Amino acid sequence: MRAIVYEQALTYVPDRPDPLPGADECLVRVHYAGICATDLHITEGYMNHRGVLGHEMVGTVVRGSREWQGKRVVCDINCVCRTCDMCTAGLAHHCRRRTVLGIDGRDGCFADFIAVPERNLFTVPSTLTDEEAVFVEPLAAACQVLAQASIESRMTVSVVGSGRLGLLVAQLLAGTGCKLTVVGRNPQTLLFCEKKGIQAIAVDELVPRQDRDVVVECTGSPEGLRLAMELVRPRGSIMLKSTFADALAGQAPLNLAPIVVNEVQLVGSRCGPFPEAINALARGAVEVRSMISRVFPLPEGLAALDAARRPDHIKVLLKISLR
Amino acid sequence: MRAIVYEQALTYVPDRPDPLPGADECLVRVHYAGICATDLHITEGYMNHRGVLGHEMVGTVVRGSREWQGKRVVCDINCVCRTCDMCTAGLAHHCRRRTVLGIDGRDGCFADFIAVPERNLFTVPSTLTDEEAVFVEPLAAACQVLAQASIESRMTVSVVGSGRLGLLVAQLLAGTGCKLTVVGRNPQTLLFCEKKGIQAIAVDELVPRQDRDVVVECTGSPEGLRLAMELVRPRGSIMLKSTFADALAGQAPLNLAPIVVNEVQLVGSRCGPFPEAINALARGAVEVRSMISRVFPLPEGLAALDAARRPDHIKVLLKISLR
Repeated sequence: MRAIVYEQALTYVPDRPDPLPGADECLVRVHYAGICATDLHITEGYMNHRGVLGHEMVGTVVRGSREWQGKRVVCDINCVCRTCDMCTAGLAHHCRRRTVLGIDGRDGCFADFIAVPERNLFTVPSTLTDEEAVFVEPLAAACQVLAQASIESRMTVSVVGSGRLGLLVAQLLAGTGCKLTVVGRNPQTLLFCEKKGIQAIAVDELVPRQDRDVVVECTGSPEGLRLAMELVRPRGSIMLKSTFADALAGQAPLNLAPIVVNEVQLVGSRCGPFPEAINALARGAVEVRSMISRVFPLPEGLAALDAARRPDHIKVLLKISLR
Repeated sequence: MRAIVYEQALTYVPDRPDPLPGADECLVRVHYAGICATDLHITEGYMNHRGVLGHEMVGTVVRGSREWQGKRVVCDINCVCRTCDMCTAGLAHHCRRRTVLGIDGRDGCFADFIAVPERNLFTVPSTLTDEEAVFVEPLAAACQVLAQASIESRMTVSVVGSGRLGLLVAQLLAGTGCKLTVVGRNPQTLLFCEKKGIQAIAVDELVPRQDRDVVVECTGSPEGLRLAMELVRPRGSIMLKSTFADALAGQAPLNLAPIVVNEVQLVGSRCGPFPEAINALARGAVEVRSMISRVFPLPEGLAALDAARRPDHIKVLLKISLR
């Protein structure tokens, strides 16, 4: 099969052997895959992942149990043991022995086929297009904000960052009726917010007053966290959605004193619930089609990753096979 | 009066004018004052405080309303406006216009006298000695951990740091019946824990397993926070008790990726409730006498601050006037 592989370097491989599904796994033919900041970080060494890249996808089960055969599916990326202390405590996303599609110890979906555990699959409602369904994984990560923080309509909330993740988080938060502001740099994405009735402010025009109940940091940069600390009120919460492992190297040290002095809660937030994400798309609470900047065929995957790095691009997709 | 003053440099001033209490304030003659890490940070430029240093004290009201005259008191360090959004929301410790004794915009207690708002005062039970009562302020900060985190006996909790603050936090936590471990460097303070029946481990002998429900970071160092991230379980909490503003300068950048990947809550925690602290001392839940390493008279305040920097000293006090 064809695949985008990260080993010593990022390569397009035209003839990688098809994956062999293990017990309780099935083989999925990938229709579309989405490119995420984590993919870009992996090509810079994050997680030491080696193998096929990619974890956002929609596809069709081509080999598996009768229950799943022929179904159009999306797939939770955490493959878990179901027996460790985290799994038995109901925190399977934190499984001590997990592998993660295209991120940690398991091949990803920038390929014609991917092998995945059947229990990770969710069927896609027929009302959703492939181009929408490929957003389920990042949208689930955005839904995790609402799963971890209780957002009420009386609350003031800011999203820092108007990129791929920020726009999904913002649309979900808008649904809570909270007093929402998105802070970003890119005029195009700020306009996207305004078209959806979400207040958007350019970071240069912002006067932070430490008065927001909740701030969701979606830039994955130390500057974003610094700004979040200037926006959040004493005893408020900052949700930290992006890892910025290596982004910090060579940066000015991060001063965490405001966290202590203002008794702020900094809450890490990673993967989220797929059913909530599918539901949000199906009922139209989140619109993703206009977030797609470019679609590349799989053999142009390296160019697609380069395009995803460009700040004027929101979401870049790989079109891999026909539905 | 005599005072330890930080202006361009730290100085002992033998003849500073006595403070003039404002409306609703009274004048307190200081018996004992305690030296805290924040005092040491201020002498390194933290908070840009200028004036009399010191915020931990016990004394006697020598001028004030009839209600307080002659009473032996301790004093909440946050002087608040009672009208801003934080004060009216019940978060007066986060008053937008606050001054803080010996830390921010107001003279402290390393002096014969201090002027303080009457509403900040708490009477000291006669069963407590001055040497005990001077611990009320830092013990209140330790009590804030229990106010912010719900600690149950089934939970595993680690305190990182066996210094002044760590030993107070550890004694309070021991009272909850939780499965407690103190991690530190100083054999003397680890022995202090063991004498009190608290499990103590030298940091060099520790094997972190990301399995603690709650970790309380009391070292105020980036290394302490790094260790806390290795100790806390996924979805667990790290309470951050100490600011380390300038400690970070020149350090390796702090990698916050474990916070996101493990969805950890990092909770800043500062000042706490005086009544809880007085109660904990009065019922003997916390023992502080054996934490006192040295007592200096006020004119030797500079030597006292130097002594407080030494890792083999736990708590250093200033004895200022007789009771």
